[in-house]
Amino acid sequence: MAAVKCRKSCGRQSGRFLRLSWPLLAALMLVLPTVESQDGPAAAKTTPRPAIPVLPTEKDSEKAAEEDHKLDSLNLMMFLFLLVLTILTIWLFKHRRFRYLHETGLALLYGLIVGVIIRYTSNEVVPQRPVSQVVAAGNIEGDPPGNIVLNVSAGEFLFSNQGPYQENQVTVINPELSKATFDPEIFFNILLPPIIFHAGYSLKKRHFFRNIGGILTYAFLGTAVSTFIVGSVMYAFVLIGAAADIDFSFVDCLFFGAVISATDPVTVLAIFHDMHVDVDLYALVFGESVMNDAVAIVLSSTVEGYGKTTKAFDGIAFLTAFGNFLGIFAGSFGIGAVMGCFTAILTKFTKIREHPLLETCMFFLMSYSTFLMAEALGMTGIVAVLFCGITQAHYTYNNLSEESKARTKQLFELLNFLAENFIFSYMGVSVFTFQHHQWKGGFISAAFLAIGLGRMCNIYPLTLLLNLGRHQKINFNFQNMMMFSGLRGAVAFALAIRSTSAGARQLMFTTTLMIVMVTVLFCGSLTLQMLTWLKIRVGVDEDQEISQPFEAVDTHSLDSSMHSGAGGSSKDNAVVVSTPQGDAQIDSRRRGMRYESAWLFRVWYNFDHNYLKPTLTHAGPPLTETLPPCCLPLARCLTSTQAYENQHQIQEDSDTDLILDGSELSYGRANSGNDLTATVVTTPTNATPTLPKAPAEEDGVEGDLGLGDHELRTRARVMMTMSTGVPGKDSSHV
Amino acid sequence: MAAVKCRKSCGRQSGRFLRLSWPLLAALMLVLPTVESQDGPAAAKTTPRPAIPVLPTEKDSEKAAEEDHKLDSLNLMMFLFLLVLTILTIWLFKHRRFRYLHETGLALLYGLIVGVIIRYTSNEVVPQRPVSQVVAAGNIEGDPPGNIVLNVSAGEFLFSNQGPYQENQVTVINPELSKATFDPEIFFNILLPPIIFHAGYSLKKRHFFRNIGGILTYAFLGTAVSTFIVGSVMYAFVLIGAAADIDFSFVDCLFFGAVISATDPVTVLAIFHDMHVDVDLYALVFGESVMNDAVAIVLSSTVEGYGKTTKAFDGIAFLTAFGNFLGIFAGSFGIGAVMGCFTAILTKFTKIREHPLLETCMFFLMSYSTFLMAEALGMTGIVAVLFCGITQAHYTYNNLSEESKARTKQLFELLNFLAENFIFSYMGVSVFTFQHHQWKGGFISAAFLAIGLGRMCNIYPLTLLLNLGRHQKINFNFQNMMMFSGLRGAVAFALAIRSTSAGARQLMFTTTLMIVMVTVLFCGSLTLQMLTWLKIRVGVDEDQEISQPFEAVDTHSLDSSMHSGAGGSSKDNAVVVSTPQGDAQIDSRRRGMRYESAWLFRVWYNFDHNYLKPTLTHAGPPLTETLPPCCLPLARCLTSTQAYENQHQIQEDSDTDLILDGSELSYGRANSGNDLTATVVTTPTNATPTLPKAPAEEDGVEGDLGLGDHELRTRARVMMTMSTGVPGKDSSHV
Repeated sequence: MAAVKCRKSCGRQSGRFLRLSWPLLAALMLVLPTVESQDGPAAAKTTPRPAIPVLPTEKDSEKAAEEDHKLDSLNLMMFLFLLVLTILTIWLFKHRRFRYLHETGLALLYGLIVGVIIRYTSNEVVPQRPVSQVVAAGNIEGDPPGNIVLNVSAGEFLFSNQGPYQENQVTVINPELSKATFDPEIFFNILLPPIIFHAGYSLKKRHFFRNIGGILTYAFLGTAVSTFIVGSVMYAFVLIGAAADIDFSFVDCLFFGAVISATDPVTVLAIFHDMHVDVDLYALVFGESVMNDAVAIVLSSTVEGYGKTTKAFDGIAFLTAFGNFLGIFAGSFGIGAVMGCFTAILTKFTKIREHPLLETCMFFLMSYSTFLMAEALGMTGIVAVLFCGITQAHYTYNNLSEESKARTKQLFELLNFLAENFIFSYMGVSVFTFQHHQWKGGFISAAFLAIGLGRMCNIYPLTLLLNLGRHQKINFNFQNMMMFSGLRGAVAFALAIRSTSAGARQLMFTTTLMIVMVTVLFCGSLTLQMLTWLKIRVGVDEDQEISQPFEAVDTHSLDSSMHSGAGGSSKDNAVVVSTPQGDAQIDSRRRGMRYESAWLFRVWYNFDHNYLKPTLTHAGPPLTETLPPCCLPLARCLTSTQAYENQHQIQEDSDTDLILDGSELSYGRANSGNDLTATVVTTPTNATPTLPKAPAEEDGVEGDLGLGDHELRTRARVMMTMSTGVPGKDSSHV
Repeated sequence: MAAVKCRKSCGRQSGRFLRLSWPLLAALMLVLPTVESQDGPAAAKTTPRPAIPVLPTEKDSEKAAEEDHKLDSLNLMMFLFLLVLTILTIWLFKHRRFRYLHETGLALLYGLIVGVIIRYTSNEVVPQRPVSQVVAAGNIEGDPPGNIVLNVSAGEFLFSNQGPYQENQVTVINPELSKATFDPEIFFNILLPPIIFHAGYSLKKRHFFRNIGGILTYAFLGTAVSTFIVGSVMYAFVLIGAAADIDFSFVDCLFFGAVISATDPVTVLAIFHDMHVDVDLYALVFGESVMNDAVAIVLSSTVEGYGKTTKAFDGIAFLTAFGNFLGIFAGSFGIGAVMGCFTAILTKFTKIREHPLLETCMFFLMSYSTFLMAEALGMTGIVAVLFCGITQAHYTYNNLSEESKARTKQLFELLNFLAENFIFSYMGVSVFTFQHHQWKGGFISAAFLAIGLGRMCNIYPLTLLLNLGRHQKINFNFQNMMMFSGLRGAVAFALAIRSTSAGARQLMFTTTLMIVMVTVLFCGSLTLQMLTWLKIRVGVDEDQEISQPFEAVDTHSLDSSMHSGAGGSSKDNAVVVSTPQGDAQIDSRRRGMRYESAWLFRVWYNFDHNYLKPTLTHAGPPLTETLPPCCLPLARCLTSTQAYENQHQIQEDSDTDLILDGSELSYGRANSGNDLTATVVTTPTNATPTLPKAPAEEDGVEGDLGLGDHELRTRARVMMTMSTGVPGKDSSHV
């Protein structure tokens, strides 16, 4: 029923948007019917694991393999053409500034269309040879053999052991539909890693770290709350008896809760980005979605492990699970961070940067190795890869050559785009080609209710809590927008498709698919409208951000610029001139400052800036200055000559390069018209472009690290007065 | 025996080169022993097809799958670390200008080392449960069932039909070694396409097309000759009876001949490139290797098909096979070319270039679709992808945005590097982990003899033939160098590993592996020495190429630049000024010219320039001018506004961008001190940089297309006189 409804709505929407792409689709449809009926050789490679393939018994198995290969090629080609179609249509949309449908939504829609075509053009074959014809061929004592040879009238046939037999294990599969089905592990091992790495690598670090408290609260506490609420609601629904025919334990419900709590608001974020929405809102939504993917993945595997040991509630098992969760999360985090640092060291102490191709390859290999290493050690590769991405962006990126910087960014952007859209188009297709859907309208409706409730109990109470401690409150409209941004996407899908053998899991998969589709298409197309309704300021020109109160500044780089004397380039001189008056004020101001982020981040920041950055990159003060004298030999060994050179000029750090495009380059953040305190200093807009670039970038960089707003404001003023020629005058107003 | 010998030599070589990378290797070795013994679950995914997996019978198959996944991750990680190690070492080599070992050779060596470690640290497990314990479980009438359930004392077990039983099909496999084995189709479907596409996309078109006659002769005739000679020699060896225990038909020998005829002189080409060797020699070696891969692939599949129909020689079957060869080659060529053109049209008529990410994604997807489409239609994907690459470079590349140009080049460069080195390191590993090696010293030695003879009968007689028609002879030293450049590599390996079920194929695989290893390591390290011995000039500064006699010029662009009047930019003006005197000379000269390349290429060139380029790109004269008046509406429809604009300025064509790096930018080719006729005009070197860039690039572009040397010489002179201010004086000397 839901399928029919969905198919209808797709038809309506796509009919309106296609136009230019119809010839292509027509060509595709011409190609598709050549997916000819095949009875025997089914999907040994592409069927989901638990289904037992119907294997060929023809003499000419080579020919069958060839046919198989052709079908595989055709099938993959279909997905590629789908993506091409999506790309062309999305270009058309971008060209016409049509923002109601994101590429992922479009990929989903096209996938649905192709799924319908495959479904209703493929012959509904019932395998001619009933599977499990012979139920008991003999009685053998001892261990079961690995292979047996069976004498039938047609000759000798080899049978291999598939493991213990379970009822319903051998299902009748439509081999044509199975062809359009991929090994579910592909999503976790091939497609998700680049998506998640890209999220980490392109994190807008500055705004991310400024909101780190909120983000972590939403990600950890929020996901836990959401998991629990969704689990409880679903369990209540099951208890009522509406899904009586499927065995659903509370742990299953919790698992579903964890799976469905991974938000993925790509659509919303794309619109936020296009519309230049308030950067803090962006950081909160993006940061939450990135971190809660990691939490949800670890949480779901923990719940699954918990479910294996006990089905009922058990205090000790619960604590073990909690310990497991922490252990896996910390372990994955550790692997990611260590591998990132290791790459940083490799790029720092070799001159591989002279060969950008080699450098990029190494970067790529090390990053993917992180995933594999975590998986091999029983941790969660996706989480490791996320933190590896963040570490690579924070340290390694600084050591890369200019060409490699561009190459790595572009490479992961490309991989992310392809993987993401592939997943969404696969989702669309699998609505029709997945052969074990459990369409239970009641359960699906209850799930929608549950995720809404879960999201509500996540955002509003936690924001209330956060606002108690936040200097800069998250206002009600922002909360509503965050509530609305709880779309589900690739991660939830990948988690749900991972195991679809049991009936409960199949129902979860169907439900997840529906939730992803509805939220992506519905919320995605309503985002613009929602921004208007919630009166969230868009079109924020980030160039004007300097007029905002900001507190972070890098006193160390100011210090080091003090050392530079008169020897720097012209832009350095500008800073050097300004620092004497700025520096004293900053120091006095620092003491009385209310940091929005906790002292933990100051400690971390100082450690990072004084020890980690100088060790892992060429940036920061030389270790010979920051380490105690007893460590001098080590410090000398670790400090590159470049670091000494850099000491005499403010290092152009990478962070702003990475986090901001040319168009986004900014000195602070935009006034979004909410609870921020008005700024005393307002600079004439035309003064901004005359500011020296490098120190401004430095601001952006060091402002990342959670030192709060105060210092950057001072620093901004220092620079402004410097450029407007009224030094130190109004900086006393603060 | 051969393995032992090889292992020794590897140890010696690598021991010398490693140094910096040892810590890494040590780390790797620490990780490796964690590949713990596993008896049950073997390699369902990674075993070569014909081997029947020993499947788990444990109750907890989920746990086994998890362990399996960990091992898979570890195994893949090992390869990635191998690549990282290769990259670091090769950086060191490049850094120290050590040119005796190419990255592929190094990957091979490291692979060997890791192969040894895996082999001798893994437990030589004999599966506890003998496979095929039960030989006949029952007698069943009619069709064999797809699955049967067997009652043993341990419970009910499911067995699935694996097809007809053959003796020796069920072999005892060491599951640990199988873990380090990938599905052989990965090479053909995943790793080779980017390598081959990159070869086509980065073809130095100008030199390639100038030597197209020679290249095609070597590729088609030469590969056929080589296949036949190798096949005959091996068959003679088999007839003598030295490999009596293996069933080797003549067709098998021919198949081996085809497989081993695919040359892959990456090592040599890398050195040629580094040393700036004569560009014609480069073009011949590179062009031959690219084209003969395609020929060898189609040829081997044709021979295989032929072998299926008949084992003896049969005239009609032979003709059918020949027809098949032509059909598959032409079909694959057609698909590649059509898909390339289709991409060109898509990029021309949409404004997708405003979104480089979308553009690059589309480019990538269309290119890989070409492979899949060819495979789905029963053609050869690799060949299609090669010609798709050439077409993309020739047309689509012109339409791409600057960013996409860089992105696509870099993307395929990266993929090529990774895939190539992965294959070579896999080769090294599989020397020790492949479990069906047939070490037959006699056969392998005979094969070395055969390929030497085959190469000799390919190069020398064909060069003799070619030199008859060539204006610019291929001298004896060049022939020797080409003879020496017959290394074998990735394609031969991928062809040989594709099917290793029969004993004959296993022997072929072992032999191919040995040949690849020896040629890559031996010839690779001797290339520099060989260049000296053969007195082949290196360090040719391509910037001086303008002093070379060259004949190709684009009269059309000269014509169109005539139309531009005085309105062009300064560089256009320069050309416009020079054309009046240049143009008449060119026309008069054209008639009496001896074209090195045949009339066919003139016809093609004119067609390409007048119709294809304007249709598929924004370059060239507008179709409204070149098409007959009756087609005017169509022409108007196909001509972009940009083309009309371009009409008024000489279009900066992409070809030189693509084929030449900044450092390689040149106006002609270097004097390599051989049979070229001395040029009359010699320009002072310092005059070269003052030449206007755009027209010079145009030269490069159009000089690609086989119009011969003559016109470019004239054109070069036109430009030179223009820049030296002595117009039309010495152009009459020619």
